[in-house]
Amino acid sequence: MTTPNSSDTAPLFAMLSAVSPVLVPYTQDRIVDELWHRPGLSMRDRAIVTLSTLVSRNATLAYPHYFNKALDCGVDPSEISELLTHLAFYAGWPSAFGAAAAVKDIFAARGIGGDALPAIGPDLLPVDAALPDEAMRAAFIAETVAPVSPALQHFTDDLLYHEVWLRPALTPRDRSIATVAALAALGQSEFFPVYLGRAIRHGVKKEEVGEALAHTAFYAGWGLAVKAALAAKDVFAV
Amino acid sequence: MTTPNSSDTAPLFAMLSAVSPVLVPYTQDRIVDELWHRPGLSMRDRAIVTLSTLVSRNATLAYPHYFNKALDCGVDPSEISELLTHLAFYAGWPSAFGAAAAVKDIFAARGIGGDALPAIGPDLLPVDAALPDEAMRAAFIAETVAPVSPALQHFTDDLLYHEVWLRPALTPRDRSIATVAALAALGQSEFFPVYLGRAIRHGVKKEEVGEALAHTAFYAGWGLAVKAALAAKDVFAV
Amino acid sequence: MTTPNSSDTAPLFAMLSAVSPVLVPYTQDRIVDELWHRPGLSMRDRAIVTLSTLVSRNATLAYPHYFNKALDCGVDPSEISELLTHLAFYAGWPSAFGAAAAVKDIFAARGIGGDALPAIGPDLLPVDAALPDEAMRAAFIAETVAPVSPALQHFTDDLLYHEVWLRPALTPRDRSIATVAALAALGQSEFFPVYLGRAIRHGVKKEEVGEALAHTAFYAGWGLAVKAALAAKDVFAV
Repeated sequence: MTTPNSSDTAPLFAMLSAVSPVLVPYTQDRIVDELWHRPGLSMRDRAIVTLSTLVSRNATLAYPHYFNKALDCGVDPSEISELLTHLAFYAGWPSAFGAAAAVKDIFAARGIGGDALPAIGPDLLPVDAALPDEAMRAAFIAETVAPVSPALQHFTDDLLYHEVWLRPALTPRDRSIATVAALAALGQSEFFPVYLGRAIRHGVKKEEVGEALAHTAFYAGWGLAVKAALAAKDVFAV
Repeated sequence: MTTPNSSDTAPLFAMLSAVSPVLVPYTQDRIVDELWHRPGLSMRDRAIVTLSTLVSRNATLAYPHYFNKALDCGVDPSEISELLTHLAFYAGWPSAFGAAAAVKDIFAARGIGGDALPAIGPDLLPVDAALPDEAMRAAFIAETVAPVSPALQHFTDDLLYHEVWLRPALTPRDRSIATVAALAALGQSEFFPVYLGRAIRHGVKKEEVGEALAHTAFYAGWGLAVKAALAAKDVFAV
Repeated sequence: MTTPNSSDTAPLFAMLSAVSPVLVPYTQDRIVDELWHRPGLSMRDRAIVTLSTLVSRNATLAYPHYFNKALDCGVDPSEISELLTHLAFYAGWPSAFGAAAAVKDIFAARGIGGDALPAIGPDLLPVDAALPDEAMRAAFIAETVAPVSPALQHFTDDLLYHEVWLRPALTPRDRSIATVAALAALGQSEFFPVYLGRAIRHGVKKEEVGEALAHTAFYAGWGLAVKAALAAKDVFAV
């Protein structure tokens, strides 16, 4: 497997060399050459984890490099598109819009047009196949959220779970990986009991979760990664 | 009530159509036409909630649209001004400055001048009227914060509570709504026992809180809204 | 001690005067003239606290003023450089890169060249001297993080603790101050039992922590500062 040559890192490394030179080998040797090539998580999945982390953190300066790298690592344009729709819900509308603005330019530069994008109204996946924990999830929201915010229950059930999670342009497994990374990057690992459980049912391996959290450390900061690892340990111990 | 025609959404929707087309109907149908028109919270209050959420999240790209929309929904320029002063404390000085830079251009475009802005040194509201829980709050800070940070106690008591919260350009009820939204968007719902209790005393209805949290979901991400709803359920259950 | 004349605040204050005029005296009188000149924490250390807070929050607009102010307050260019390397780990790579882009221009304007920057591969400090709690820390990671993410354990032990924390361009005491401020600004005060304990061993006084947290209030928002003060009170009470 070769390192994707997504974009020219020379200007970035020249900037770092003028301020904090050791960040050049840390970035090239430890992240690009080591972290991304560890076994236990494919480079494609690492790209999904990284994009989900960056969008959750509004790391706009990193978008050109990493959206290109994701495309080079085998994430399809339709998957990139659908990932942003998914992240609009977990990271908030403004974060998704900021990422879409960057992706628009990348798609244009690569000649990726509307025919490569997911349909607005596709046939949805069956609930049972896509969301093995749906009854439990709906009951949790009915018990905890509905008494305070019927509006939030409505949009959660009607829009997020009975539509977005069932859209076929991103597999349930990819949605799980993206959501776990987003929750880690957002400091919301208190929801790991729900989302990591679902990820495992979607076929994500514990080893893959562990590798994903190492990405979170570099791209979102150490504390969030350690917090997420502590939460994951509790979930996996059940 | 007509939808405010705050600004032209065509460029935004053209951008989304080139990347994640389904975000166009989600934005127009589910947010603009549905969420904002739900009963239970006025459009004016929804604007305050949305601005407080966006400023807390540094969602700078969204400022031109939503500050204009807030003015169109009946939030006065002096209230916008005072909201930024209030949010400087809860979201941090840099976030308020970033929003002020955007509002400066909007005020200039609309011919809103200094005579529309709150006085620097107005007559303050009486503490008893504005802050029904002031004795309890001051005791809490004296017990928990003062032993570690006398400086933080000083600025909290002297500046934030005995000056900012008493400035008349924003009603205590509006400050409560803004602060609850900001705390939800910042992931700080651990303070809801204090702030939701005060909001209720300021006349905010539980139903209004529930509607406000649905805004938080779309504008700050689902996890923060669910976390806030869980915290609100605990407070309301007391 | 004179107030550093780091940069011209006139354009900022003109902008604030057109939107939220009271933020001008709040900024000048309460922050610049009062907070920064309180006893209990040196202006140099306040600069390190403020930079760590701002970088953790991606407050890019504030970088030109405050990196210049830090240099004027006696933080050396090599310490600024190394602080960004340190914060890359705690605030995430993208936040450090965003700050480095601003610092590059400041260094260029001041004629600060590569000879003023830390070596990429210096002699490292002895572990025992720099990290008095290293055995306990490594055991904690081995017990909690390693079972979930061997990758995260690897990079934590090998890179963050056996290299970054031992680099001599920033004293262990300064790293502790910076990390405590960053954790407070990131809402990660759940790690204060580890980091505040280490800070005290590095010679940071409790009074200095309290003063630092007051900076966090203004630059990152009140809730984070109060949350951090509550966590610090628990640690100091042990």
